[in-house]
Amino acid sequence: MKNDMTIAVYPGSFDPVTNGHLDIIHRAAKVFDKLVVAVLNNSNKNPLFSVEERTALLAQVTRDIPNVEIDSFQDLLVNFMMKRKAHLIVRGLRAVTDFEYELQLASMNRKLSEGIETFFMATSPEYSYLSSSIVKEIAKFHGPVAGLVPPEVEAALRAKFAGVTPN
Amino acid sequence: MKNDMTIAVYPGSFDPVTNGHLDIIHRAAKVFDKLVVAVLNNSNKNPLFSVEERTALLAQVTRDIPNVEIDSFQDLLVNFMMKRKAHLIVRGLRAVTDFEYELQLASMNRKLSEGIETFFMATSPEYSYLSSSIVKEIAKFHGPVAGLVPPEVEAALRAKFAGVTPN
Amino acid sequence: MKNDMTIAVYPGSFDPVTNGHLDIIHRAAKVFDKLVVAVLNNSNKNPLFSVEERTALLAQVTRDIPNVEIDSFQDLLVNFMMKRKAHLIVRGLRAVTDFEYELQLASMNRKLSEGIETFFMATSPEYSYLSSSIVKEIAKFHGPVAGLVPPEVEAALRAKFAGVTPN
Amino acid sequence: MKNDMTIAVYPGSFDPVTNGHLDIIHRAAKVFDKLVVAVLNNSNKNPLFSVEERTALLAQVTRDIPNVEIDSFQDLLVNFMMKRKAHLIVRGLRAVTDFEYELQLASMNRKLSEGIETFFMATSPEYSYLSSSIVKEIAKFHGPVAGLVPPEVEAALRAKFAGVTPN
Amino acid sequence: MKNDMTIAVYPGSFDPVTNGHLDIIHRAAKVFDKLVVAVLNNSNKNPLFSVEERTALLAQVTRDIPNVEIDSFQDLLVNFMMKRKAHLIVRGLRAVTDFEYELQLASMNRKLSEGIETFFMATSPEYSYLSSSIVKEIAKFHGPVAGLVPPEVEAALRAKFAGVTPN
Amino acid sequence: MKNDMTIAVYPGSFDPVTNGHLDIIHRAAKVFDKLVVAVLNNSNKNPLFSVEERTALLAQVTRDIPNVEIDSFQDLLVNFMMKRKAHLIVRGLRAVTDFEYELQLASMNRKLSEGIETFFMATSPEYSYLSSSIVKEIAKFHGPVAGLVPPEVEAALRAKFAGVTPN
Repeated sequence: MKNDMTIAVYPGSFDPVTNGHLDIIHRAAKVFDKLVVAVLNNSNKNPLFSVEERTALLAQVTRDIPNVEIDSFQDLLVNFMMKRKAHLIVRGLRAVTDFEYELQLASMNRKLSEGIETFFMATSPEYSYLSSSIVKEIAKFHGPVAGLVPPEVEAALRAKFAGVTPN
Repeated sequence: MKNDMTIAVYPGSFDPVTNGHLDIIHRAAKVFDKLVVAVLNNSNKNPLFSVEERTALLAQVTRDIPNVEIDSFQDLLVNFMMKRKAHLIVRGLRAVTDFEYELQLASMNRKLSEGIETFFMATSPEYSYLSSSIVKEIAKFHGPVAGLVPPEVEAALRAKFAGVTPN
Repeated sequence: MKNDMTIAVYPGSFDPVTNGHLDIIHRAAKVFDKLVVAVLNNSNKNPLFSVEERTALLAQVTRDIPNVEIDSFQDLLVNFMMKRKAHLIVRGLRAVTDFEYELQLASMNRKLSEGIETFFMATSPEYSYLSSSIVKEIAKFHGPVAGLVPPEVEAALRAKFAGVTPN
Repeated sequence: MKNDMTIAVYPGSFDPVTNGHLDIIHRAAKVFDKLVVAVLNNSNKNPLFSVEERTALLAQVTRDIPNVEIDSFQDLLVNFMMKRKAHLIVRGLRAVTDFEYELQLASMNRKLSEGIETFFMATSPEYSYLSSSIVKEIAKFHGPVAGLVPPEVEAALRAKFAGVTPN
Repeated sequence: MKNDMTIAVYPGSFDPVTNGHLDIIHRAAKVFDKLVVAVLNNSNKNPLFSVEERTALLAQVTRDIPNVEIDSFQDLLVNFMMKRKAHLIVRGLRAVTDFEYELQLASMNRKLSEGIETFFMATSPEYSYLSSSIVKEIAKFHGPVAGLVPPEVEAALRAKFAGVTPN
Repeated sequence: MKNDMTIAVYPGSFDPVTNGHLDIIHRAAKVFDKLVVAVLNNSNKNPLFSVEERTALLAQVTRDIPNVEIDSFQDLLVNFMMKRKAHLIVRGLRAVTDFEYELQLASMNRKLSEGIETFFMATSPEYSYLSSSIVKEIAKFHGPVAGLVPPEVEAALRAKFAGVTPN
């Protein structure tokens, strides 16, 4: 039997958040009492936006969804789940390569903490070709990213690459 | 913001229910207020067990989970969802081939009824090789199906194939 | 060096033609001098629409594209290609399962007739979940197929399933 | 530590044997003391060649490989393995769809009989598009199958489809 | 209706060109009026051969195909397409992982510039295992690359790795 | 006909060896006369454990299997095979992405040295989510790795990350 209040966590790099992520956020927020969007602070990777910038952009583009909260973590996801007293992970699925890797993560997370479940949602077809990397590649060359990311992120990308001569 | 009570539907053929299905039922029933296991009555296919038999077996093997209910449908799934005032579909995912087909169904169901969401759960690794067809193939040759299906289903399979000389 | 006039063949069952097929037809017709849409007359399968009906529906929905021609074949595709003096096959690609099978067919067709090339086009994301089978399944239960097929096909499906009580 | 003599079983429908199968047979026979090619007698399917014909064709095309033996089975593969005192299954792998299904079978066979191992060999690239079904489809329309099957099978296919007007 | 002259672009890193690439070039050049092979100048990656070397090698190995032209780009591919007044992209497809990524790129390129189409050609089976990376790995250890790359590239690889003690 | 004594090589990075690797080692050692576990010394990668450490850990966790031998190589695998007079490669298979890459390697290795065969074994379902990288990620955050690696490796990971504040 389920708990009183269902908290789901949507973890990711969100470097930056795209319309594909936002679609998952909107859809998941309709299903759960609270949705915590959790930005992974992975200092091994070399992100374009800092965790603070990524968190701020997420807060801006989700400000109209009352049951969404933005947070960040730099530890194992299962530890973050425990800290937030959450048992559900939400992930968007696009491609087969995604799928295999996601299945491994989900099984590993259940192994690390048995009560944890991962729910996969199918990315809407119109965003199936979309990823943060491809958006950054386009923005680097001053290509059009409208329709791929929210306006706030578009502005942030333009500021980031202003005056940059692509290598 | 979510509804007051969350009803999820777990549709399938369940011909017969396996331990892999039962694992998904147990895990999903912990997350949602109510889980409706919905047996597809597809008269095109030639099932081993009738809808009545499949429903009865499901009822037996889930009798200890209070928020699980067994039902059946022979129409479009989205129509059944509407009848049951449910918006969430739960599906187990095993393999890549599953995944592609499931993604198509999920997108089509959202197209047919926009509020409907499909949540995919990863089949537990120890059941990743398991399917109703493979169980029936083994039972047909009087092979061992203990550990693959609940004891009630094992007995039902034995009764079904008693005296049958496999072709 | 290429030939004087490029004829491409788009083979399929088209039982019935969907908006996904029509998208490929429009896009391919812009690239080649002539596009022959070739309906496979496979008497082994049990189609919903006869070859004549499928051909007529295709002719109706492509009447505004001057360089598209509708034809049918019931032999090996490579024999049909020879008869039509065509060397190019066009196929839409959706999913991984499609992809593997299509690659096998393309390699086999080149083995059977070395000059023949298959060009794969990615199905538009908004039609990636669409197939003739899923459309027929929906229409059988009098579900909504607008947006999935052209209006002419919608009417034909309605006529086909009028008065049918789905089994 | 391994057994004294290594017997491997290569099971399949072989309806009919292709050059892709023969490639696996040649390569596996170099590795194991004995290779038993085991024809599945599945009366549910509607084969083109009878088990007797398939066995005879296999015997002809492997007559030069002394450690190959042809046999057939119509029961669970693990029962056949036990009868033959064999613990190793050999399977060729072509495509992703193959792969997922094969992995399920291999895991199930180990579950049914723990000592049994399945070894997968990659089909040679030049046969990666080849299957018995595609060969039968070509032969039905009197298309060229030389290079796809051994000469003995080519003759058998020609005899089978002589005078047949393809439907 | 198609344009007067069909220009297709075959983009890639070509570091270095392999027999697999060359097979696609030969086959695509038979279909289109002009084929522009476009070397991606990605300064983020650390290539073995400079853009100038890669371009020169491509020019040498395609010198007998009159309608092939070699060019390079370091911007978004769609910008290069516009500059060359080309609307068709040609890509070879090998594996499932390729396929998913390629489909994303193709959909994104159509999103960025709607008139642009990507045509995928199946890599010939005998080159399905071949990639520039695997060729470089072999050459680094002075292994045999004849049959994998054209003789000119074989010589260039030998020169590059002469006197190199592999780490 | 097979050789007198069958030596198989199981190559990999083993950084560090997991219970998934150990499962393959146990199963393969039952089939072949000798199994050489060969640690790849790839100085391009930045391993957590040195080749000496990886070799020592492998020796410890396989000390009870008399026909297993640990070795290392930093050259092409086919050269190592020749040096060890071995013709068989054993590889574990988990996921589709693995599968495609592994098939490419196997075909390339046969191309480089025709007598060499690669045998793929399906990873046991309970280890299908397991990889050296995921183990290192967990250990870095002092998460529980018991059940994922042998006790000796668990201790080595703990020592490696003692006093490390994860970035």
